[in-house]
Amino acid sequence: IAAGVTNTNYFVTTEQGRYVLTLFEVLQLDELPYYLDLMKHLAEHGVAVAAPIADQEGQLASLLCDKPACLVACLAGRDLTTPNASHCAQVATTMAKMHVSGQTFTGHMSNPRGLDWWQRTAERVYPFMPADEVALLQRELALQQQQSFADLPRGVVHADLFRDNVLFDGDHISGFIDFYYACDDAWLYDLAIAVNDWCSLPDGDIDAERARAMLAAYQAVRPLQAAEVAAWPLMLRAAAIRFWTSRLLDFHCPQAGELTFAKDPGHFQRILQQHCHRQDFWLS
Amino acid sequence: IAAGVTNTNYFVTTEQGRYVLTLFEVLQLDELPYYLDLMKHLAEHGVAVAAPIADQEGQLASLLCDKPACLVACLAGRDLTTPNASHCAQVATTMAKMHVSGQTFTGHMSNPRGLDWWQRTAERVYPFMPADEVALLQRELALQQQQSFADLPRGVVHADLFRDNVLFDGDHISGFIDFYYACDDAWLYDLAIAVNDWCSLPDGDIDAERARAMLAAYQAVRPLQAAEVAAWPLMLRAAAIRFWTSRLLDFHCPQAGELTFAKDPGHFQRILQQHCHRQDFWLS
Repeated sequence: IAAGVTNTNYFVTTEQGRYVLTLFEVLQLDELPYYLDLMKHLAEHGVAVAAPIADQEGQLASLLCDKPACLVACLAGRDLTTPNASHCAQVATTMAKMHVSGQTFTGHMSNPRGLDWWQRTAERVYPFMPADEVALLQRELALQQQQSFADLPRGVVHADLFRDNVLFDGDHISGFIDFYYACDDAWLYDLAIAVNDWCSLPDGDIDAERARAMLAAYQAVRPLQAAEVAAWPLMLRAAAIRFWTSRLLDFHCPQAGELTFAKDPGHFQRILQQHCHRQDFWLS
Repeated sequence: IAAGVTNTNYFVTTEQGRYVLTLFEVLQLDELPYYLDLMKHLAEHGVAVAAPIADQEGQLASLLCDKPACLVACLAGRDLTTPNASHCAQVATTMAKMHVSGQTFTGHMSNPRGLDWWQRTAERVYPFMPADEVALLQRELALQQQQSFADLPRGVVHADLFRDNVLFDGDHISGFIDFYYACDDAWLYDLAIAVNDWCSLPDGDIDAERARAMLAAYQAVRPLQAAEVAAWPLMLRAAAIRFWTSRLLDFHCPQAGELTFAKDPGHFQRILQQHCHRQDFWLS
C-alpha cells in the first residue's frame, strides 16, 4: 500500500478474508500493545476502527523479518480527498464515540508530539526558515506556552485523524485506521486536528459549512463544555502548530530511507495564519 | 446644554472664563467627591479631562437649589458623530494615560453596573422582549457568569467613554467629560466599551481600521498582557451587554421626568450579535 510514513502496509488476501499487515519502521515491539489494545477495545465497544487480529497465542503484536508487525482487519472502502459536510459529520460522530468509549480503556500514553516537541522541533528548523515565518512560529509557541489546556476534559485521542486515516465505503464511514499517534490528551485537540484537515481549503481558510457540520455532529454525542468552547480558538492554532512543525522537520531534515515524499509545511502555516487573522479581533 | 441623562448641564460664561455647571438628578452630594477628586487627580497628572473648580472653601461639590452641583472647566470644541481612525487613536491614547495615571488615585468605587446589575436588569426587561432576544441575552449572561475577569489588570475606568463624552477641538482631542460612571474595574473593560462605540457601524459590525487604530494607540502607552489578549473577545461582548441591558431598561421602564429620549437598545443587540458571530468559530 503506497501510503504511510512511519510504517509499511501490505494487503494480505486469504481464503478467510482480507487483512492489512503493518511493519513498523519506528515503533518498537514493546511499544505496540498500547495501540493494538486500544484498537481492540474500541472495536469491541462498537467504534468503527480496524480491529487487530491476534495470533494463535493471543498476541496482537509480533516480530516479522526482525520488524515489529501486526495484522488488522481490512476495512471496506477508501479514503476521500474531497469530503463533503456529511462525510465530515460522520467523522466527528465516530470521533466523539471513540472519545466516550475510550474512557474505559485502561492503557495510558502521554503525547509524544506535545508543546515540548513543537518547541524542540522549531529550534531545529528555524535555521532553514525565512525570518517572517520564524517570527510567526516563535510568537505562536510563546502564546501556547502561556496557555493551559490542563483543565479540559481529556482521554484517548487519535491525534492524527486526517483524511487518509478514515475509510469510507461509498458515502458511509467504514472506520478509522492508523492509531499509532494515539495518546492521552484533551479531546478538543483531536477535534481541532480533524477540523484543520477535513474542513480546510487550499488557502488555509476553513469551510464554514463543513466545520459547522463536524462540530454539530460531535456535540450531538458529546456536547462541549464551557471551558472547551473558550479554548476552541487557540486549540485550532495548537493543532495547526503540531503539523506545521512536524512537516517542517520532515521537509528540512528528512530521515534517511523515508519511503514517501514530505508533505507541504506551507499548508499548515496558511491554516495557522488564517486562524490568527480570524481570532485577532483587531489587536494587530 | 441639551445632553445628559442623569444630570443637567449649563454653560456658565463669566469674565474669568467659561465653565460647565452640572446639577445632579441622581447622584447625592456625598457621592460626588469620588468623581470630582478623580477628575482633579487626572487633570493634575496631565490627562485631558475637564478639571473641576473648587469654591472659596476649597470644596469641589456643593448644593445649588437643593441639588448637588459642581463647576468644571469648559473644554474647547465639541463631540464628534463620525470619528475617523485618527480621532479613535487619540481617544485610546488618552484612555491609556488615564488608566496609568489613575494608579496613584486613592479613591475607590466598585462598579455599580457590573454583571449583577446586568442580570437584575435583564429580569426586569425580559417580559417586554421577544423570545429570541431573551434567549440571546440569557445565553450571554450565562457565558459571562462562567467567565472571570478578576485576574486582569484593573484600576480606574471611565466606563462610559462614548462619542458624546469626548470633546474635540477641530481634529485634536480636548478631553474626556462626564466621569459619573467611573469606578474600579478591568482596564480592558473600558477599552471594550470605547471600541464598541467609537468603531461600530450601524449594522453593529466593527470598522477594522478604526479598531486597529484604537488598539495600537492604546498599546503604545500600555501594552496589553497575554491574559487581556485572551479575554478581549468576551470582554467586547460584556461591554455590549452592559449597554444593551441599560438601554433596554431605559426603553421599557423609563424613569418619570427623564429629560432626554431613550436610545435604541437594538444597536447594542446588533453589536453583541456581530461579536458572537465573529467569535463563534463554527460552534453554532
